[in-house]
Amino acid sequence: MRYGIGGQIIIEPGMTEKQIDKLFQNLSNASFRYARIRMFELYMKDANGDWDFTLFDFAFKAAEKYNIDVFATLFPATRFEDIGGFKFPFTDEHFEDVKIYIKNVVPHFSKYSSCYGWVLINEPGQNNMPSEEFSEKRYQEYLLENPNLPIKENGCPGMDFSREHFMLDYTSRYLHELADLVKEEAPDAHLHVNPHAIFSSVLGTYNLPQWSEFLTSLGGSAHPSWHFGDFDRADYTIAMSANSEILRSGAGKLPWFMTEIQGGNNIYTGGSPLCPTADEIVQWLMTVLFHEGKGGIFWSFNQRSAGIEAAEWGMLDLKGEPTDRVHAASKVAQFIEDNLQILEVAKVDDSNVHLIYNRESLWVESRVVPIKQNMLGRSGRSGIISTQTYYKTLSEIGIAATISEINEFDFSKTSYAGELMIFPNQIALTDEQLELIKSFAEKGGTVLLSGLTGFFDQNAFCRHMATNMLDELVGAELKEVKYLSDSFTLNMEKYQLNSQMVYSILNPISAEPWAYYGKEITGTRNKVGDGEVLWISSPIALEAKVNSNTSLKTLLKDILSQIKVKVPENSGVGLFTKTLVSKELNLTLYINKSNSPQKVKVDSKSEIIFSSCTNEIINDSIKIKPEETVVVKTYLL
Amino acid sequence: MRYGIGGQIIIEPGMTEKQIDKLFQNLSNASFRYARIRMFELYMKDANGDWDFTLFDFAFKAAEKYNIDVFATLFPATRFEDIGGFKFPFTDEHFEDVKIYIKNVVPHFSKYSSCYGWVLINEPGQNNMPSEEFSEKRYQEYLLENPNLPIKENGCPGMDFSREHFMLDYTSRYLHELADLVKEEAPDAHLHVNPHAIFSSVLGTYNLPQWSEFLTSLGGSAHPSWHFGDFDRADYTIAMSANSEILRSGAGKLPWFMTEIQGGNNIYTGGSPLCPTADEIVQWLMTVLFHEGKGGIFWSFNQRSAGIEAAEWGMLDLKGEPTDRVHAASKVAQFIEDNLQILEVAKVDDSNVHLIYNRESLWVESRVVPIKQNMLGRSGRSGIISTQTYYKTLSEIGIAATISEINEFDFSKTSYAGELMIFPNQIALTDEQLELIKSFAEKGGTVLLSGLTGFFDQNAFCRHMATNMLDELVGAELKEVKYLSDSFTLNMEKYQLNSQMVYSILNPISAEPWAYYGKEITGTRNKVGDGEVLWISSPIALEAKVNSNTSLKTLLKDILSQIKVKVPENSGVGLFTKTLVSKELNLTLYINKSNSPQKVKVDSKSEIIFSSCTNEIINDSIKIKPEETVVVKTYLL
Amino acid sequence: MRYGIGGQIIIEPGMTEKQIDKLFQNLSNASFRYARIRMFELYMKDANGDWDFTLFDFAFKAAEKYNIDVFATLFPATRFEDIGGFKFPFTDEHFEDVKIYIKNVVPHFSKYSSCYGWVLINEPGQNNMPSEEFSEKRYQEYLLENPNLPIKENGCPGMDFSREHFMLDYTSRYLHELADLVKEEAPDAHLHVNPHAIFSSVLGTYNLPQWSEFLTSLGGSAHPSWHFGDFDRADYTIAMSANSEILRSGAGKLPWFMTEIQGGNNIYTGGSPLCPTADEIVQWLMTVLFHEGKGGIFWSFNQRSAGIEAAEWGMLDLKGEPTDRVHAASKVAQFIEDNLQILEVAKVDDSNVHLIYNRESLWVESRVVPIKQNMLGRSGRSGIISTQTYYKTLSEIGIAATISEINEFDFSKTSYAGELMIFPNQIALTDEQLELIKSFAEKGGTVLLSGLTGFFDQNAFCRHMATNMLDELVGAELKEVKYLSDSFTLNMEKYQLNSQMVYSILNPISAEPWAYYGKEITGTRNKVGDGEVLWISSPIALEAKVNSNTSLKTLLKDILSQIKVKVPENSGVGLFTKTLVSKELNLTLYINKSNSPQKVKVDSKSEIIFSSCTNEIINDSIKIKPEETVVVKTYLL
Repeated sequence: MRYGIGGQIIIEPGMTEKQIDKLFQNLSNASFRYARIRMFELYMKDANGDWDFTLFDFAFKAAEKYNIDVFATLFPATRFEDIGGFKFPFTDEHFEDVKIYIKNVVPHFSKYSSCYGWVLINEPGQNNMPSEEFSEKRYQEYLLENPNLPIKENGCPGMDFSREHFMLDYTSRYLHELADLVKEEAPDAHLHVNPHAIFSSVLGTYNLPQWSEFLTSLGGSAHPSWHFGDFDRADYTIAMSANSEILRSGAGKLPWFMTEIQGGNNIYTGGSPLCPTADEIVQWLMTVLFHEGKGGIFWSFNQRSAGIEAAEWGMLDLKGEPTDRVHAASKVAQFIEDNLQILEVAKVDDSNVHLIYNRESLWVESRVVPIKQNMLGRSGRSGIISTQTYYKTLSEIGIAATISEINEFDFSKTSYAGELMIFPNQIALTDEQLELIKSFAEKGGTVLLSGLTGFFDQNAFCRHMATNMLDELVGAELKEVKYLSDSFTLNMEKYQLNSQMVYSILNPISAEPWAYYGKEITGTRNKVGDGEVLWISSPIALEAKVNSNTSLKTLLKDILSQIKVKVPENSGVGLFTKTLVSKELNLTLYINKSNSPQKVKVDSKSEIIFSSCTNEIINDSIKIKPEETVVVKTYLL
Repeated sequence: MRYGIGGQIIIEPGMTEKQIDKLFQNLSNASFRYARIRMFELYMKDANGDWDFTLFDFAFKAAEKYNIDVFATLFPATRFEDIGGFKFPFTDEHFEDVKIYIKNVVPHFSKYSSCYGWVLINEPGQNNMPSEEFSEKRYQEYLLENPNLPIKENGCPGMDFSREHFMLDYTSRYLHELADLVKEEAPDAHLHVNPHAIFSSVLGTYNLPQWSEFLTSLGGSAHPSWHFGDFDRADYTIAMSANSEILRSGAGKLPWFMTEIQGGNNIYTGGSPLCPTADEIVQWLMTVLFHEGKGGIFWSFNQRSAGIEAAEWGMLDLKGEPTDRVHAASKVAQFIEDNLQILEVAKVDDSNVHLIYNRESLWVESRVVPIKQNMLGRSGRSGIISTQTYYKTLSEIGIAATISEINEFDFSKTSYAGELMIFPNQIALTDEQLELIKSFAEKGGTVLLSGLTGFFDQNAFCRHMATNMLDELVGAELKEVKYLSDSFTLNMEKYQLNSQMVYSILNPISAEPWAYYGKEITGTRNKVGDGEVLWISSPIALEAKVNSNTSLKTLLKDILSQIKVKVPENSGVGLFTKTLVSKELNLTLYINKSNSPQKVKVDSKSEIIFSSCTNEIINDSIKIKPEETVVVKTYLL
Repeated sequence: MRYGIGGQIIIEPGMTEKQIDKLFQNLSNASFRYARIRMFELYMKDANGDWDFTLFDFAFKAAEKYNIDVFATLFPATRFEDIGGFKFPFTDEHFEDVKIYIKNVVPHFSKYSSCYGWVLINEPGQNNMPSEEFSEKRYQEYLLENPNLPIKENGCPGMDFSREHFMLDYTSRYLHELADLVKEEAPDAHLHVNPHAIFSSVLGTYNLPQWSEFLTSLGGSAHPSWHFGDFDRADYTIAMSANSEILRSGAGKLPWFMTEIQGGNNIYTGGSPLCPTADEIVQWLMTVLFHEGKGGIFWSFNQRSAGIEAAEWGMLDLKGEPTDRVHAASKVAQFIEDNLQILEVAKVDDSNVHLIYNRESLWVESRVVPIKQNMLGRSGRSGIISTQTYYKTLSEIGIAATISEINEFDFSKTSYAGELMIFPNQIALTDEQLELIKSFAEKGGTVLLSGLTGFFDQNAFCRHMATNMLDELVGAELKEVKYLSDSFTLNMEKYQLNSQMVYSILNPISAEPWAYYGKEITGTRNKVGDGEVLWISSPIALEAKVNSNTSLKTLLKDILSQIKVKVPENSGVGLFTKTLVSKELNLTLYINKSNSPQKVKVDSKSEIIFSSCTNEIINDSIKIKPEETVVVKTYLL
């Protein structure tokens, strides 16, 4: 799939061919290569209820004219007020309607050379099992297929996670069915879908690697105003980076790109409303590109005209003219054109630091907390928040960590020397996952288990109530967990760690004591094969999130220095950096998210190949002012 | 209808004829002319379920004896816990029950000379469509009668406002039906009803001018503890004034009075509980009178004995003796008697400043904000809050603005020179309304569009996505809206305006730039015919509400001086003034709601005709202490 | 019933006989005498669904081996996620299932000599009427049996309290039915049950004296993290004391003990999570013992292994080893063994100060507040909070008040001279209750009515709207209640009282004025027979709770000095004391809950018989450091 920037084109009744043509002309003028079109069934019927594709034909023709590639999003009829579209049919008859829609729409538009791909559904998945008949029936069938659910362990019943298992399966399965339906009509179609709300529990319904069985590319929706509520605005670059990293990992060998990026202003929608600045548009796109994303499509290019989201979100102004946001994106589009060859081969310079989450932890955490509280540790979301916080902290010391669901991680290498795997308060691990972690350590890797990681197994059975595989991994037993109302301090040999909520009392067996709460051992380090498993049994990332992350940074620097991971010089709070490497050269992205200018030292063989402003290299260094984005190319010797 | 003060008499089983007589004696002693009685069907049945009007006969006889006029409120049987009564029948059978109730109750009590009028229902209307069968059936019928709902524009579907349209129609229609039922039994009956919660979305269901087809007088419920939650206690006078103004406008040529004013203490009810002071009783009554209200009836004179509201709200003490609140009201009753001739002819001295709201804005705003937030602009209530804030600010500079639903405003005059019409963040305007506004300007009027006024049409289609009638009116195009998290400042030529939430980028066509955000034009002024249309595209009144209203005051003074509206001398923060004028004389009301004494200059031909304390004119000025109320009569030359 | 400490043993599938044996060995090692076992039906079925008691047989055998007495809690099958168990059957069939369960389980385990007693249900009662068919049917039957519900007074309808009446009856009745079912199988069984959440509205469904008809002993659940949310952690001893006092009163002549005390840490459960310290374990147990409780059983000894509460709440660590909490409890167990003879005869040294609540107030308050607000007086819970606050304040001046539901109090004595009865904002009293209060006063007792006590009768009719029995009792009429937004001060002759929310205006008839708000009389004192009725008509305890309780303390000391109740020397904020007395000696408990050491003076004939630390008597005084617990034995001359 080729690199490029795109815009969501909203087609609505009442638009003229000329107006539609103008939209594509605007895309083209801005050097955009992609459009995405929501294929509203509601707008494809004439007064008699017969198919009438006129409006959308205008669009695909205009796309052909301006050489724009269209991603067409399936959007079967739904209420006008249903802004996001339904995620699963409600009844069998409803599913039949979906099939009829696909049977008519896909072949008709596939004929256009501008028809580049199909988005199977908009933002798949649901946090909770849908209550309608169709889903309930599928669930009952699933239970029959999986008579072992809910799972008993040693004959002991546990929580019923059958709905979580079902939703994981059902989400993939329904997408697969849609993919098959499209392929029946257009066997070679490029198929795509855009997982969204990646920091919410919907993530627990996404089996991304499985989707590569039927997708051509993976996408995502990353709207700061809706999806980055855990972050301050200055950290939206970090959030976009973390979001990208989760998608990159999920995509595996598939190409990926960001299907939806907020392109314009919120008035009444968005949980944390904002109008993106031109600088942010550049930052977000560059961040995607530096995570190997093929580009991004803005939601949206033009605006809806009525109801919720009316006159919001657009890159064009309300009169259809390009804003500074279009110009900013256009500049990145130009950067892509100019550096296409390099981008095609350059890869993320993985730091060998891996943040691992798993969906069992998402499931278990959202269920074992009976009353969600503001306190992060009891929010039901502490695993994902801890992951964000580790990611941000690592980013601030210049380390570009990967973020992977554990099933996405490659455990097949022969050595993991110099690699660090971190589990940020991932409270539920399976035996198989513990085996994998152990093998990682045995092959020289370093593992950091943080917080209540592995406290439960996948069925919410507590591991520590008997001898268990986690003990062996960490070389210690967990004897007690103790809740504290106030923040507190753990003592390491040379520094202190701030923490909150709980600490655990550990009993080292093969491990050495590493961290203390008073006289109690609350952290251990254990040699495992050629590697080591480190354990801080208290959720330190939550304290870092709420109060200050200095001590988490100290810990990470300490660990990194022990495993000889080099911390880059050009790091610092607020300077976001990412690097793509190829055989011959490096591309480095610098975004200054701090409040003051930052100076970056570069190699003498470096040149600036993108600057959101007018930066120069003077004496091997670049001064980057707040909000500026710079890309530097450095030839390797 | 004659002027007078009244009290709600609660009749309950167990009361003796003597007790009931005593209540009316108390009314009479206090110079009250009116009683209101809730005609509880629940209390009109004997042990066999047959009608037994004994208790209420006692009341109407006592009213005759003491020369008290009774407003009888229809109150068909409902659960004891249903404090306010049902607003619509639940089923056809239920409606039949209502009819039987009316057929029996109305003729029986109409025979009494004390039976002055009927209140058709207590506090009509509901915020949301009732879910019961009867209403649902009416709704379905309404849809059949109005096959164009929900409305498509240019074939483009929009939000479904059919429930809002229906509720507006249904509320009027059901009241009309009740009126007809009463008239069948008592053709000459005085019919009345009391709209309540006037600052809530129930206002959007009130087609007040239409009600004059079947009402003899319009009323209202204005309970500070329930209805003035947007105001501080010191502003309850302003709130009562704004509430009165909305009713005065809605009444049109009908007489109006305040059917319910809080008469006593809250314990467990009321959102912001309080016990009115004697001073407040005077202030609230005088405020009503100075808005041409014929008087007020207190809810309540005596108290309910059981359950919710038990022993609350009363003007009498729990032993049935008059409190200082009765004495205060009595003093106003005496004032009415003494000045009846003047009151009958004196009219509000309209300032030529008109605040206009429209129900389309109420409807659209409550629907386009998907998640209501604390932030006022995203509360779904910003239009009404902006209206309140303009009203308060104008009041503080001594300008008695009118407040009208746009349909209530008289657009038929030949000249509006020297008149100002303000639209406070009224986000939805129809084309017809824009035509009217234009005609107002063409005929010399000045229009101030404030905030996102006219951003949508009545179907929540954004006007700015195409050339539209608003552009022509303002002489500019709106290109973009931009959300800002923090408060910000707009620059006018000579002063600054504080604002929040959003500003818009305007492109003047025929208009001149007027306000700037940085370099962007965010306000314009446009000559239209003999008049001018001013536009500040940012919701400045919300900022005035939250933080300080100094700059809003500056703006208003500036505009008023341009159109030669004289700002009175005796204005100042906390001094509430209102004037009634007749050919020969003015009556001016002064209420000091500030924390310190205020000096008011008066004409040498002035005399004090009411003083809540013992104020005197010394050297053409009156010193009014906090909470005091003074009325001054001034003969014109 | 013999004194002793116990632990809840969780039996789950997968446990081995050896593991279960170990648990009982641990109990025995810690000198615990009791175990409680939840008799999960879910874990008593084999693969064919036939009864299989193996696991539980292991437990009862181990109990025999280690001489542990088992309380077996009936726990018919329910969902795994149903942590507390259902409180009433859902259908008739469901009740049949419960009966079959009892028929099988009770005879089987009654054979064991270790089977000491049966807990009929876990934590009986529900705040609201259950919605299921079984309960609804019972309710309809109840209405037929009680055709006078809802009650009318003087033909005047009032609120419908039939559900409250029903729930009170139903809760007792269903427990009685369970008791009968158990007795059919085991006629001599010790029967027990544990009321919980004692400070919540569930208390209004507990007719504790009635339960003595079918119980052998009364119990309770008192979990600080769930049930003491009205208290700060430093006040959990006070909370435990108040909870104990309510149970002691409810038990009447039955022995009582605390069936559930939090034994270990919360992670995700508990509203205010914590891990009890060893000191707290001692404090809570000693507090129970000093309220004549026979001991306490910790929830839990070992932990659940899965789901909600997994790895939480236990006294053992997760590896099954005793924690410092076990050692602390063991020390108390040893104290019991060493002092058994004294404990058997020593009784609470009642101070003659009685806090009285009644369930009519609980019912009425939860219903007459239509919208619950944060403000305590409008929380719907002000009666219980006022009771807690009086209890705490009295405790701080060294007075061990009793707390009784009014039906539990002994009104049959011939003299109450020197006794004080306090009604803390108990807003609803019946005529019969007023008669009893009057008789108490007539026989020399002093009564303090505080706040809106007696404002309503049991049907939420306000008493003050007519002459009524309360007037006669207090010798005054209540004329008005007035709400104030800010805290305010009442004036007594020699001191001031802080209050909030409302004051009332009283009109003394036979009473003398006692307290004033400005010039209004808001408190009175009235001689009644040989006693006196004091009335402060403002909810002073709420202000004491929110801001400071100094003035409440002043008032109480004043009253106590007037009735010659001696305030002990060793009182002071944070030093909790309780005394048990026998003919020959006193046992006094001292717990220092303040932040600094406190010195306690003791008699020369005193000796320390328990110390949580290593306290000594030096010069007739003991220095007790924060959190330390000391018990002193003093022989009387």
